[in-house]
Amino acid sequence: MSRIPIAILGATGTVGQKFVVLLQEHPQFEIAELVASPRSAGKSYSEACSWKQDQPIPRRIAELTVKSTADPLSSPILFSGLDSSVAGDAEVHYAEAGHVVISNSRNHRMDADVPLVIPEINSHHFEMVSRQRWPGAIITNSNCSTMFLAMALAPIHEQWGIEWVQVTTMQAISGAGYPGVSSMDILGNVVPYISGEEEKMEIEAQKILGTLTPEGVDPAPFVVSAACTRVPVFDGHLETVTVKLPSGNEPTIDAVAEVLNSWRGMPQDRSLPSAPVQPIEVLSEPDRPQPARDVFRNKGMSTLVGRLRPDPIGTFKMVIMGHNTVRGAAGAAILNAEAFVALGHFDRYRR
Amino acid sequence: MSRIPIAILGATGTVGQKFVVLLQEHPQFEIAELVASPRSAGKSYSEACSWKQDQPIPRRIAELTVKSTADPLSSPILFSGLDSSVAGDAEVHYAEAGHVVISNSRNHRMDADVPLVIPEINSHHFEMVSRQRWPGAIITNSNCSTMFLAMALAPIHEQWGIEWVQVTTMQAISGAGYPGVSSMDILGNVVPYISGEEEKMEIEAQKILGTLTPEGVDPAPFVVSAACTRVPVFDGHLETVTVKLPSGNEPTIDAVAEVLNSWRGMPQDRSLPSAPVQPIEVLSEPDRPQPARDVFRNKGMSTLVGRLRPDPIGTFKMVIMGHNTVRGAAGAAILNAEAFVALGHFDRYRR
Amino acid sequence: MSRIPIAILGATGTVGQKFVVLLQEHPQFEIAELVASPRSAGKSYSEACSWKQDQPIPRRIAELTVKSTADPLSSPILFSGLDSSVAGDAEVHYAEAGHVVISNSRNHRMDADVPLVIPEINSHHFEMVSRQRWPGAIITNSNCSTMFLAMALAPIHEQWGIEWVQVTTMQAISGAGYPGVSSMDILGNVVPYISGEEEKMEIEAQKILGTLTPEGVDPAPFVVSAACTRVPVFDGHLETVTVKLPSGNEPTIDAVAEVLNSWRGMPQDRSLPSAPVQPIEVLSEPDRPQPARDVFRNKGMSTLVGRLRPDPIGTFKMVIMGHNTVRGAAGAAILNAEAFVALGHFDRYRR
Amino acid sequence: MSRIPIAILGATGTVGQKFVVLLQEHPQFEIAELVASPRSAGKSYSEACSWKQDQPIPRRIAELTVKSTADPLSSPILFSGLDSSVAGDAEVHYAEAGHVVISNSRNHRMDADVPLVIPEINSHHFEMVSRQRWPGAIITNSNCSTMFLAMALAPIHEQWGIEWVQVTTMQAISGAGYPGVSSMDILGNVVPYISGEEEKMEIEAQKILGTLTPEGVDPAPFVVSAACTRVPVFDGHLETVTVKLPSGNEPTIDAVAEVLNSWRGMPQDRSLPSAPVQPIEVLSEPDRPQPARDVFRNKGMSTLVGRLRPDPIGTFKMVIMGHNTVRGAAGAAILNAEAFVALGHFDRYRR
Repeated sequence: MSRIPIAILGATGTVGQKFVVLLQEHPQFEIAELVASPRSAGKSYSEACSWKQDQPIPRRIAELTVKSTADPLSSPILFSGLDSSVAGDAEVHYAEAGHVVISNSRNHRMDADVPLVIPEINSHHFEMVSRQRWPGAIITNSNCSTMFLAMALAPIHEQWGIEWVQVTTMQAISGAGYPGVSSMDILGNVVPYISGEEEKMEIEAQKILGTLTPEGVDPAPFVVSAACTRVPVFDGHLETVTVKLPSGNEPTIDAVAEVLNSWRGMPQDRSLPSAPVQPIEVLSEPDRPQPARDVFRNKGMSTLVGRLRPDPIGTFKMVIMGHNTVRGAAGAAILNAEAFVALGHFDRYRR
Repeated sequence: MSRIPIAILGATGTVGQKFVVLLQEHPQFEIAELVASPRSAGKSYSEACSWKQDQPIPRRIAELTVKSTADPLSSPILFSGLDSSVAGDAEVHYAEAGHVVISNSRNHRMDADVPLVIPEINSHHFEMVSRQRWPGAIITNSNCSTMFLAMALAPIHEQWGIEWVQVTTMQAISGAGYPGVSSMDILGNVVPYISGEEEKMEIEAQKILGTLTPEGVDPAPFVVSAACTRVPVFDGHLETVTVKLPSGNEPTIDAVAEVLNSWRGMPQDRSLPSAPVQPIEVLSEPDRPQPARDVFRNKGMSTLVGRLRPDPIGTFKMVIMGHNTVRGAAGAAILNAEAFVALGHFDRYRR
Repeated sequence: MSRIPIAILGATGTVGQKFVVLLQEHPQFEIAELVASPRSAGKSYSEACSWKQDQPIPRRIAELTVKSTADPLSSPILFSGLDSSVAGDAEVHYAEAGHVVISNSRNHRMDADVPLVIPEINSHHFEMVSRQRWPGAIITNSNCSTMFLAMALAPIHEQWGIEWVQVTTMQAISGAGYPGVSSMDILGNVVPYISGEEEKMEIEAQKILGTLTPEGVDPAPFVVSAACTRVPVFDGHLETVTVKLPSGNEPTIDAVAEVLNSWRGMPQDRSLPSAPVQPIEVLSEPDRPQPARDVFRNKGMSTLVGRLRPDPIGTFKMVIMGHNTVRGAAGAAILNAEAFVALGHFDRYRR
Repeated sequence: MSRIPIAILGATGTVGQKFVVLLQEHPQFEIAELVASPRSAGKSYSEACSWKQDQPIPRRIAELTVKSTADPLSSPILFSGLDSSVAGDAEVHYAEAGHVVISNSRNHRMDADVPLVIPEINSHHFEMVSRQRWPGAIITNSNCSTMFLAMALAPIHEQWGIEWVQVTTMQAISGAGYPGVSSMDILGNVVPYISGEEEKMEIEAQKILGTLTPEGVDPAPFVVSAACTRVPVFDGHLETVTVKLPSGNEPTIDAVAEVLNSWRGMPQDRSLPSAPVQPIEVLSEPDRPQPARDVFRNKGMSTLVGRLRPDPIGTFKMVIMGHNTVRGAAGAAILNAEAFVALGHFDRYRR
């Protein structure tokens, strides 16, 4: 079967570059169009792009001519790494033009008719696209920090329910794009504030773990409190997490570890190309996970969990970590697209 | 009045060096003796010491001959920056020899007859020395991360009581001494584990804020849950904190800020030489405090608080930060000594 | 005598902020006006400025209203930390309006009638202002990396002459201003290129050490080869330097050290307020100078030299280091102003 | 053909770990024995080793029992990542026992009968083993910083000869092993001194490029001057280099680039498993190579060259960079072993 042509929106940005790296040899999708702001349009990708990946630009991609967001596109699937300042209108525009927009941007995540999906958890939410107002569709993945939290919470929530979660993040600089964080602000420093991040973390996981209803999604009824910080780490968001289970649930730490380690979902069942074999991996070393050391495990597609231990206020605490621009962004969107196609949803949009 | 001769135990270590910097021109104390391990003994301080401060060794101190822990000392007050592997026995040995040991080590902090003091909070605990078994005395200050937490909690506890506290720390490398943390472990990384640190943070604040009884100290009855991490920051421990007040207490954020900002204690009342004018300073900028930018405020002797905001699980959350080797270690011990002298406790040990 | 009112041009930038810190309690100059781009004008300095210093903005300065570069100024002396994209025309404009512009910008450094001065070396070059085309004047200091090189070369050149110099720099991020270098580019990295920097380093020292002639300055006849890199260091430019003396000159390393250490100039003779007691300090430790450890020595106004040793190609090699935004920028301009006033040149511009 | 069993000496160290990573799926060599200090002996490799690589320990290797340097070994080829404090005697001991020791240690590099080989340059020096005093043999690769310099110089030397070379290095922390450089020394800092490094760089390239004689190797007659520094970079040594060709040789920069880019050697001719297709790659971007961005190019086995430009003192200057623990250490030794086998030298030692 021939590969589906795809476009990358925001192709010169940090997430856009990661789309290029992850899609360059994809068995189902073929990079056909690269789209960026009008000032990049008309240039070759290698000219337009301040490439920051640790491998050279794939030769074929380097020579593609960048299109403008004003140009019509021919690819049926668009991966969007657009900046949130423009993604809101642009993605609607593309959906109106009949494209399936697989978006990493925050703008439409909480819309009542837009699925916010982590396919291991809630691929059935894709059905929401049938309610959308457009000939095309918009589907979204979560914020990067939410991703690892929601994945670690999913098996817990399914098994025991959750009352509340307290999370403190230590987020990598790559999450802020390029040029993003000034070196003057972060070298040898921690910045205890990321605009809008805590608000996103306090609502997104509940939608992902929520119940599909005719009107939208009933959020899962647990409370999240988040404190978000930026640290001088290149890739990999680390989070300290305390979880409070409903009264009466006091599983052993071993039982929690077993539930996390053995959790599998639809991407594993279907062996989707980008699916990690083990979506959550519990590390036993006392000082792991660590961003610099573990971020490339399982090609950056797993959530790593460590330091599971009882908590004197909640029920247990743990440390979680994942690759913020792979599973937390471009890789999440690609896995969404693979799941969307595998489940047959894409068929109605084929042309 | 002539200055009191003092000795520094563990003088070549990170905390010992900070004692030298902070005491070099002290109005009440005069560095008379420097004590280190036998392999340093007999050398000049400048030869024995791998000096890591950002100012040269004071000339007079550089030329002092280092004594061994096996040598008898003549100074009535000893500042101990000894490593915890040796501090336990050594400090008892010196107390038996009649010295007042002002210790920064963890070994005796939780002993029933040893005061664990932050003079702004519980200088009345110094009375416990009268119960000690030795001709001399041991007084201690808290762990560096506990210091900033206990200070930020003290006015809250006094005003409203506290039910529980969740804290995640991001601790500077200088807290691990020298050579301490390998650059291979921390460059561009976060290590989510510091041996023994969480255990200390979960019990020390309660003793400091506890009630003096004939048998010791009744710990304050709140619960602390701590998650401790190491980050690539030189000086300054940053902590994200959620505080739960007892039911019925819902102060406004402005009221909390006012209580923190206006808090003063005995060191301020007596204008002790090392006392910060304002022990807690609430910063209003949305992204502060930051270690690299704020660690030198108030000569490193304040606890800085920022981002006070409501918390959906507890009552409010905040970010706190302080200089781990100044207020969190050497400066804390020096302020303890100043308070101990000012309150007359030292008089019984004068010779 | 009352203090001379001064203005700071480019007051919100990195160099502008350093001017504020260094001039806040200056005995001769009083900060009267702060000037920035039109979008900052009309705001208080604390609102207009993204303050990056490790001490708070002085209260009086924080409340000054920022003026626009389009506004007329009343201060006779202007310290310019303007970006080179605007400094060229703006400084001429101010000189035409009768101001003495003490500039840190590169634009006019090599003009035939503009003195490029390090007052320890060539304060007699100030006489060039009498040839300038304007009622006011422009005087300049060198590029930050040139500063430490020129200072270290001056006593050598005076004593033995110089045939050639090879220098490799490792420059701090603060030299690029704010936001300047993206953290994505420099964290755990070295960037072996700084636009225009090598060109400046290869010509400026020769003008500073050159001979005043009726037409301008005859450059000193030695050759400089420079390789400039950016490293993840906050403050402090480090340089490895090989010096080739003319044939027949083979001083011992001790002789070179003595010549450097004992060198003094006009700022020391006159005890100018910002003058370091010792302009060049030779360190004897085998692994110094180091930016993080030595950058604050002598208040950042000295050039530090270490590792003097014979060189198998040139005559000797060494490592030099200095504070790039103090002696390498704002402090250099202030010392120039102090020297300019002390030598009576300012008298003709007083109003 | 079955694979040759090999042992790794110093298997738990930084270079030893890199040997494990690079040899885990080698077509010719099979890891049979892991050797470390007596205190590691008897443990499984995963217990004995503080693993610092960014991928997990290969499972089979993790379970191997570590042997002591006192144990007899059965593998005919030993890769030595031993610390230089013990490598001198230990390697002789193994050579006396009949083993071929492929050493990365400095101890025997300059011995008159020990080949110091970069197989692209001087694989004919392997013949020196026939002169060795032992039933086995010792062959060595160069110091990590010398590696990239010697490779970049080889085609130049061959084409035009070389008069002198000035090099300044900026070396990664991984070059110092583990725990190696304290984070207190290098975070946000540059240390302008690495013990013994400049001495090695000033003599090794001349032996590698020298002429084999009956008595040993006549060193190539050019002069090297080196200044070595440590920077806060994880992997990748960067070097600024000025090269002076003999008078009369003034090739264009394009000609130099062409000579470097087109250079090939015996490992390329024989398609050795670890040989890079292109041993030297000239990058055209103005700000490359950079360690964090380019260190993994060509699997870390190439020397990357950038910023070729004329030099006002020498003939031209450039920036070079390579992976210090791959091509600069473990990878160099493995390529040496592959070349040694391919050229038939190993046949006399087979058992």
